[in-house]
Amino acid sequence: MMNERTELASLGEFGLIDRLAKPFEPALPETLRGIGDDCAVLDYGGESLTLISTDMLVEGVHFDLAYCPLKHLGYKAVAVNVSDIAAMNGTPLHITVSIALSNRFSVEAVEELYAGMQVACKDYKVDLVGGDTTTSRSGLVLSISVLGRVGKDKIAYRSGANVHDVLCVTGDLGGAYLGLQMLEREKQVFLSNPTVQPELSGKDYIIQRQLKPIARTDVVFDLQEAGVVPTSMIDISDGLASEVMHLCKNSKVGMVIFEEKIPVDETALATAQEFNLDITTCTLNGGEDYELLFTVRPQDFEKLRNSPHITPIGYCLPAEQGIFLHTLNGNHISLQAQGWNHF
Amino acid sequence: MMNERTELASLGEFGLIDRLAKPFEPALPETLRGIGDDCAVLDYGGESLTLISTDMLVEGVHFDLAYCPLKHLGYKAVAVNVSDIAAMNGTPLHITVSIALSNRFSVEAVEELYAGMQVACKDYKVDLVGGDTTTSRSGLVLSISVLGRVGKDKIAYRSGANVHDVLCVTGDLGGAYLGLQMLEREKQVFLSNPTVQPELSGKDYIIQRQLKPIARTDVVFDLQEAGVVPTSMIDISDGLASEVMHLCKNSKVGMVIFEEKIPVDETALATAQEFNLDITTCTLNGGEDYELLFTVRPQDFEKLRNSPHITPIGYCLPAEQGIFLHTLNGNHISLQAQGWNHF
Repeated sequence: MMNERTELASLGEFGLIDRLAKPFEPALPETLRGIGDDCAVLDYGGESLTLISTDMLVEGVHFDLAYCPLKHLGYKAVAVNVSDIAAMNGTPLHITVSIALSNRFSVEAVEELYAGMQVACKDYKVDLVGGDTTTSRSGLVLSISVLGRVGKDKIAYRSGANVHDVLCVTGDLGGAYLGLQMLEREKQVFLSNPTVQPELSGKDYIIQRQLKPIARTDVVFDLQEAGVVPTSMIDISDGLASEVMHLCKNSKVGMVIFEEKIPVDETALATAQEFNLDITTCTLNGGEDYELLFTVRPQDFEKLRNSPHITPIGYCLPAEQGIFLHTLNGNHISLQAQGWNHF
Repeated sequence: MMNERTELASLGEFGLIDRLAKPFEPALPETLRGIGDDCAVLDYGGESLTLISTDMLVEGVHFDLAYCPLKHLGYKAVAVNVSDIAAMNGTPLHITVSIALSNRFSVEAVEELYAGMQVACKDYKVDLVGGDTTTSRSGLVLSISVLGRVGKDKIAYRSGANVHDVLCVTGDLGGAYLGLQMLEREKQVFLSNPTVQPELSGKDYIIQRQLKPIARTDVVFDLQEAGVVPTSMIDISDGLASEVMHLCKNSKVGMVIFEEKIPVDETALATAQEFNLDITTCTLNGGEDYELLFTVRPQDFEKLRNSPHITPIGYCLPAEQGIFLHTLNGNHISLQAQGWNHF
């Protein structure tokens, strides 16, 4: 029965999830959406829908305590979960936090971690209402679930984009990835010579993008104020390319993105040059910016034109036209999801 | 700022949770109960309340893959979460599953784990609607959250017991702990001589109690059929003594338990004798039986008298009379929570 052995690495994360999720077809009338969007969508009665999402963060895989202060880690862990609720156009309300930790952590260290979560809970107005605490044989493992609500007429899935819809992104992209490059470089310098002070001056913005990202609940509010419901939405955790592919696949459309429109911060641009990296590649494949990517009907876009947080970067095409980047020099490059395989 | 170093072991699990939870006072009107019961209780509108609970299971701490088949582990992980919903007198509906695993696991092994979860999802009629999959540097870590619902007039907290209420328990106790003793013994035999076959014949019941416990959603249904709402309720994960103390502390009552009334299975009794263990100690401190412990008003108990799954084992006293066991030979022994400290 267990003769076969397929290596995890041969499937990659998305392949593994697809394979594991397949037998779990939702059976309850309360389940409007199971696996396959930023949140599961549940109808528990009442006027709004219940959203749930969950994330697991593992030391040495998702974070490195050599440069990630525990307080920032706590903040980020909450923010990235809240971001999943925002990505459905919802309002976060509650989180639970489970943690496995070894006795190399002191009580004071764990309190630092929770202090960061507390700041995030205040910022996003969510209550921490439960969790589990256990021991770990090695590193720190953090598992957070977030619950939220969204009006039935406000919910934005990944699947509702139509041809001609305008593709928009919030904030700017690539910063979190370039912040990580800075931190990794300074860690290597430190490891080879512990007396050298880290050289991070002027890089505050991108360091913050990496260590303490912000969930765009403010944009969910702006959309509501403008009376606009996105036709599709996702948050940018794995990089713009990967998220564009998700929207296209789920909405059965194609897309064109204009390289010149992709919003980039000055520090990020300068740092890319410093590292000899192409800034567009950083935005497409970098990940962890936790900005929102969404489509709106052309007539709705007019209502968002003056929002300082929202940039139009492309539009939807018929699926058969494909998914591509219109580069600065006028070329069309087919988009590939970099994917993400840490096995 | 971080000069102090308090060791985790000095607080124990409950002490650590108390200390970490303190700054997280619920602020939202939607939060009816945060940390401190089997589930958090949320009011998301509509006629019923939303329940959420979460558990983290760590290889080498909560399970040993030497004798715990992955399929059983998957089943148990779901069942113990469902049990938390039952402990609020609620109906489980949805779960999310996050997993960290190293590449020593094959895809087929992970599928075995999920096959067990699938059986449990069918048994308890819950949909798996989300999760996260990541890599681990060492052992398997499983984090499950469960959502459920309960009518506003049906919910049972730990805190509602009154003097004279009858204390009831479902099923029988001590089996899971004695099953674990059997498995541990056979593992040691196997480690010293791998050619010896494990000697578990006739022990099916207690082995099953350990490896594949059952959440008592059936009793929640029975209570509803009988028109009885418990005044307080908890599930037995840490042992009868610890759970009795939780009910007493939260309800501000005392209790007497009659040793002769504690329900015990024959196989468990015989195995306790084989291991030279006191069976009552096994029931009080053994844990992992996942039966329900609850109090009902005396007049309600009459409606449950004929239930084959429910045994009255004591009653509530004024708090100042304490919490004690009335032993077979007529002595009164003050109860101590064994506690549980795996740091």
